[in-house]
Formats: sequence, structure tokens, C-alpha cells
Amino acid sequence: MIEPKIPKGFRDTLPQDQLKRKFLIEKLEKQFQRFGFMPIDTPVLEYQEVLLGKGGGETDKQIFHFKDNGGRDVALRFDLTVPLARFVALHQNEIEFPFKRYCIDKVWRGENPQKGRYREFYQCDFDIVGASCVLSDFEIISLMESCLKSLEVGTFKILISHRGLLNEFLKKNDLDSQNENILRILDKIKKVEKQEIEQMLSQEGIQEEKIEKIMKFTSPKATGFLNRIIEIENLIGSETESSKRMKEIFQLLEETGISDNVIFDPSITRGLDYYTAVVFETYLDDCPEIGSVCSGGRYDNLTALYSKQHYAGVGSCVGIDRLIAALDTKKLNNAPSAQVIIFSDGSLEKERAKVASLLRNNGIKTDIYLDDKKMKQQYKYAQVNNIKYSITQISNDKLTLKNLSTREIYSEITANKVIEIILEKN
Amino acid sequence: MIEPKIPKGFRDTLPQDQLKRKFLIEKLEKQFQRFGFMPIDTPVLEYQEVLLGKGGGETDKQIFHFKDNGGRDVALRFDLTVPLARFVALHQNEIEFPFKRYCIDKVWRGENPQKGRYREFYQCDFDIVGASCVLSDFEIISLMESCLKSLEVGTFKILISHRGLLNEFLKKNDLDSQNENILRILDKIKKVEKQEIEQMLSQEGIQEEKIEKIMKFTSPKATGFLNRIIEIENLIGSETESSKRMKEIFQLLEETGISDNVIFDPSITRGLDYYTAVVFETYLDDCPEIGSVCSGGRYDNLTALYSKQHYAGVGSCVGIDRLIAALDTKKLNNAPSAQVIIFSDGSLEKERAKVASLLRNNGIKTDIYLDDKKMKQQYKYAQVNNIKYSITQISNDKLTLKNLSTREIYSEITANKVIEIILEKN
Repeated sequence: MIEPKIPKGFRDTLPQDQLKRKFLIEKLEKQFQRFGFMPIDTPVLEYQEVLLGKGGGETDKQIFHFKDNGGRDVALRFDLTVPLARFVALHQNEIEFPFKRYCIDKVWRGENPQKGRYREFYQCDFDIVGASCVLSDFEIISLMESCLKSLEVGTFKILISHRGLLNEFLKKNDLDSQNENILRILDKIKKVEKQEIEQMLSQEGIQEEKIEKIMKFTSPKATGFLNRIIEIENLIGSETESSKRMKEIFQLLEETGISDNVIFDPSITRGLDYYTAVVFETYLDDCPEIGSVCSGGRYDNLTALYSKQHYAGVGSCVGIDRLIAALDTKKLNNAPSAQVIIFSDGSLEKERAKVASLLRNNGIKTDIYLDDKKMKQQYKYAQVNNIKYSITQISNDKLTLKNLSTREIYSEITANKVIEIILEKN
Repeated sequence: MIEPKIPKGFRDTLPQDQLKRKFLIEKLEKQFQRFGFMPIDTPVLEYQEVLLGKGGGETDKQIFHFKDNGGRDVALRFDLTVPLARFVALHQNEIEFPFKRYCIDKVWRGENPQKGRYREFYQCDFDIVGASCVLSDFEIISLMESCLKSLEVGTFKILISHRGLLNEFLKKNDLDSQNENILRILDKIKKVEKQEIEQMLSQEGIQEEKIEKIMKFTSPKATGFLNRIIEIENLIGSETESSKRMKEIFQLLEETGISDNVIFDPSITRGLDYYTAVVFETYLDDCPEIGSVCSGGRYDNLTALYSKQHYAGVGSCVGIDRLIAALDTKKLNNAPSAQVIIFSDGSLEKERAKVASLLRNNGIKTDIYLDDKKMKQQYKYAQVNNIKYSITQISNDKLTLKNLSTREIYSEITANKVIEIILEKN
């Protein structure tokens, strides 16, 4: 006998949880399609060199890499962005730009598994590649807003900023040589106390007066999107390309009635990521502790590593697993596996098959209990699978329907009456 | 610069093709849910020992295996059945039996890629685990029939047989010691000439008279399901458990009106697979050359390798890629990425954003062209993405709608009129 265990850091998903995940993915896909985004698919394995760049030979312990059957170094993808870049570089003559694509699939990391973190998990990316206009920034933010709304996870805030503003501010204050260190510190601003940030900046040798300015920049006093931009412009000294872009974005958000869910927050930087302009994060009002559930930004050149052709773009990534965690806190009812179950109660098999066929042909999700267990066991099965109605005593085109939650019983009714009851009352 | 190539035997899927695949998967899932089947998810990596059994150390060249970061032998799954067996053994106390599950996901094989065969491909499995009754056989056949019908790939035939019949027949003719060799030969019966089969049987040292009987068994003269069973019963010498089960299955198929699509074909054996009772294959009338598009059968004990507990079951597997090939021969229209596109024609960005938002909120899939390219380029984009309508000249709440296939133009109409036209005429 072999122990049926799975590799460390991996997990199975049981039916109820997988149904939840599929439900969420379905809702997201509907939004992507509403915005004209198309799905693509790429291999889970890529050449290691493609995933890690030329330096990849030194072996990044974070990724699952191995030799394929031809002896070449391959690895499981660790995100969906690098495969997108490789895809765009390879197929640039086959796809129409601006290219709007989405992808929802698994990625793998080799890091040591911690509580709630797995080596295999889902990502959901959507990007517009080959567009620089303000409308493309707006489209991504607007789609983020539609996604979050469609999931019914309560109210939320999309925080947006622009990397250019921070760069311009640091330059103005002769801090651009320390740009990278400051970015790394500010990336922690949502996770640690204000004093800790100040302390870290001080340890970098930044003068107290400049630290004060940095803190002012990252926590503006003004309320409202436009007022905050003006406050930041004052700190920089003038209107800039970046602040102008932010104002244009805000105008589009306001025109389309979604500005209430979007906040200008200059502390958002997305760390050392490859973003170069607008950046965003999204927090649920009911569970801020789970972190950003949808983050992204604009990048200058997606395909830098693989092509001479430059492709600017903007995109975002939904945290599927975090959203499932958020939905779990709402203790929603589990999804039913079927609307009605035909119990095994001694009714003839052919009668049960006929009723199942009739109900299914009328659009009703119908299960048949496929064993001769005691009724107690059959009721348990219905309960575990959240099935609302049961059918028993089928004979001469009549049967008994029971509502398993109210215990209401409809005796000696026709299958057509069953259809009526289930479709009306469900 | 790194060449953006992908590993040998792997492939990218471009948007139009991925849309087709998703369309097909969506239709299948709808049928699974109609029958009360639930989805599960398992890791793409399993321990090599779990996938290959104790003998796995000898390294099967057909699978992608490697050492994980902790030095353990892991491998990419090569089908969805072994992970199901492992899943059922591991979670047998958490799931309710009979367990109806489906799974549509990628699997990997290391074999040398040939034309039309890839190292990474999709499988779609559905099984009922922990049930032995005739209704469970019927449920799988009935679900196969519903799946094929829903896909609109033309007419088809589900060929079914019972491994017990062949065993009983071979025993009756003192051929049971050569059971395995005969099975291996009969598995080729749909692919080679009758004479070739006879020759192969003869090479196994089987007497001419018995070869004649085998050929009679595998190609019954009688027409109709029941007549054929009686013919086979005559060859075996009596009614048997297996022939009785086949008659019971037929009765259920007839009661539910799907017997016309199901043919009893005793030549179906599924080779040396683990099936032990009923077995089935499905062929499309319009493209028999692509082979069986949905095959499966009943097995005695799914979890034999991992658990002392026995689980009988029955299941089937849809050939997603073969069905896509079949749909491609029908030259169906490609799916549109959106119903309407708002062109970049100098209309104000905020006007374009507002119209897009309004249309999307009314359920219309709407794209915005996100660049300032010439109109010729924008028309090409709409054409490549199969978008039917375009919108231009937005000002003062009026705009121009164009039907890109009929070239009909609606000038100076309101966005609400656009919604009417698209929803009515699309």
C-alpha cells in the first residue's frame, strides 16, 4: 500500500471549496468579457532562461526547476506576467494591438510553506498591452471596480497613485539617489507604524526635515481626490506630467460615477516592481487585514527582455485566494450540488431514471442517489451537498416531493408539478 | 536579448482558440452540474511513488519527474484518474459517497511530440465513485449523451459493451488463458482490417475455428441492442450476469428516450485498461477519423493502491482537443471579443468613457479602441476580434453607430437607441 499523501505546501480542494472558487472565477470572467478582454493560455513549463533572464543559471531557489526529458532547464511559471511578456514577444505579429488579455491559472513558488501560503496557487491577471493613453489607465481601474462590485464582498476602496509623482518629489528634494531605498521602506507603510517608517528613513541617513516632507507627501491632509493632487503638486512645486495624468484619470472616474470607490493615496508605490506610472491597490472595508485584493499599475516596456519592440501597458491582478478568504468570513451558504435529489426508496429504477431525465430536460439540476443505503444516510448526503428538495415514492406518474429545509411535503403530485414548485420557489 | 521560445511539445493558445476551448468547457460544466456532479482540484505535482506505484523508482520516461526543493521525487500528473484515486483514498472520511466529481484540467506526458500531439493537453473526466448499481452506469451514459448533444457537433454514436461478456465468451471457448493477448489484439479492431485481426489471432496460436467464433462475437449480425445481446448470449451459451446488466442498462436508455444514440458493440474492450464491466466509446458521425471523443467504463476498485477500502465506480473522459478539432471542421464563426467597439476618432475621452460605461451597465460587451491609430488600423482590429458594431462621433449625447458587416449606419442617435439596436439585432 502506498500512502496517498501530497507534496508539502500543496493542497487538494474539496467540492464545496472548488465550487466557491469556480463561482468567483466565473463572475470575474464575465466582467473581463464585458470589457472586451480575451483569454489566452500558455504552458505551465517555460525554459528557465526565459523565466529568470540570463542570470537564471545561478538557480533561484524560489522556483520549481528541473531538466526536461531532453536535458534542458525548464521551470514551472511563478507568475502570469513573465509568460505574458514572452507570449507578446513571440506572437507580436499574430495579435492585434492594443492587446487586451486576461488569464486565470495556477502559478508555483518553491518558498517554504507558511500558514495560509501555498506553493501552488491561483492568479488572475488582466492587462492592456500596447497602449499609453489615459483611457487605458481608466479601463483597468474601471474593470477593477466592476470586478470587485460583481463579487459582492462588501464596500471597498481602490487606492491609486503615480510613481512619477514620488520620483518628481524625491528629485525636488535631492533624494533621487536614494530612490530605491526609500521605495523599499515606503512599501511597508501599510504594514507598520508611522514611527517605524521614520526610523528606517533616518537610518538611511535622511535628514529629519526631509523625513518630515516625505511623511507629508505620503499622508496628505487634504480630503478628496483633486485637493490631494493639488497638495502634492504644491510639495513638488508645480503641475507635472504625472499630476496632470492623475487629474485626467479622476475626470473619467467622475464622469462614469465610480470616483467614490477610488482614493488618491500617494503612499502606494508597489515597491520595486516594474511599474513606472500609475499604480493601484484595493482594500475591502470589512477585512483590511487580508491586504490588497487587486493590485497593479502601468509599465513602460513589458517585453524588454525578449524583443527590440517596446510595448507599454497597464494591468492588474486579482487575489483569488484572498477574496475567497474574505467571502468565507461572510459565512455565505454553500452552493448546492443539485436542486433536487431522487432518493433510493424502492421505487423502480426506470421510474427514477425517467423522472431525473424529465427534470434535467426542464433545466433542473437533478441528482439520483446511487446506492441502497438507509434513508438516514441518504438524508445526510442531501444535507452535505446542500440539496433543497427530495423525491420519493415514484409510481404511476405520481411522486412525493419534500422540501428538506421546511420539511413541507407534497404527496402524490406529477413531475410537472414538481418542476413548477422548484422553479417558482427556488 | 533572450529568445522568447517555449519548450518542445508545448504550445501557446491565442485568444480566438482559447475562447473556443472555454466555450466548450463551459457547455460541458453546465451538463455536469445538471447531473449533480461537483468539481474538485488537485495539485499538478504528485509524489512520483504515488503516480507510478512502488515500481516508479525505475523512472518512467513518459512522465515529467524531478526532485522538489526538499530533494523528493515528484512528477507532473499524466492523467486525472490516478489523482482521483489518491484524492478519494486521502479524503474518504470527508466526502459523501457515492461521490460524483468532475475535473477539467491539464495533464502532461513526456513522449516525443508528433503532429497534433502535445506534451501538455487538457483532459475532462467525470466519475461516480462508490456505486455499483445499474443506475450509476446509466447516469454516466446519459451524461455522455447530454454532453455530446450540448456541444452541437452533429450526430454521434455511443458504443457500449461489457468486459464480462468477452471474459465469459473466452472462458466458454477455453481461451481465458490467452485473455490478455486477445484483448490487446481486439483493441485494434477499429483501426485495422478484419483480416489483419484474424492474422494476429492466428499468430497467437488460436485455432481457425475459434478465430471464426471470436470474429462472430465482435461483429454480431443482429441489428438492434437487444437482438445483439441475445446473439451474444447464444454464443456464450446462456444469460449471464453481464448480459443481464446490459439488458437493464438498455431498458433505462429506452425509458428515457436516448437509446437511439447508443449501440451495443461487443468489439469495444478499452484494451488493457483497468475497466472490469461496462465500457464505452463515442464516435462522431461526421468525423469518425478523429477517434473516440468520449470513453470510459466501470472499474472494480479505484483506490486499490492507496487504501484497504474498496471503491467501485464508473466514469468517462471527454477528449477536449479532439472535439475542438471536430468543431473546427465545421468552420463555425469565431467568437467576438465584444459586441461593439468605440473607435478613437477624436471624440472626447470622457464622452467615450461615459458611453462605454453606459453600454456595459446595460449588459453589452463593449471595447474601447485605446490608441490614436488611423481608422484603417482600427477597422482591422474590429475585424480580427469579430466585433459587429462600431461607435464614432460622440458629442452632446448623440453618436453614430455602424454595423460593420452590413455597413448600415445610424447617425446622430442616442446611447439608449444603440442599446436597443444591439440587443434586438444581435
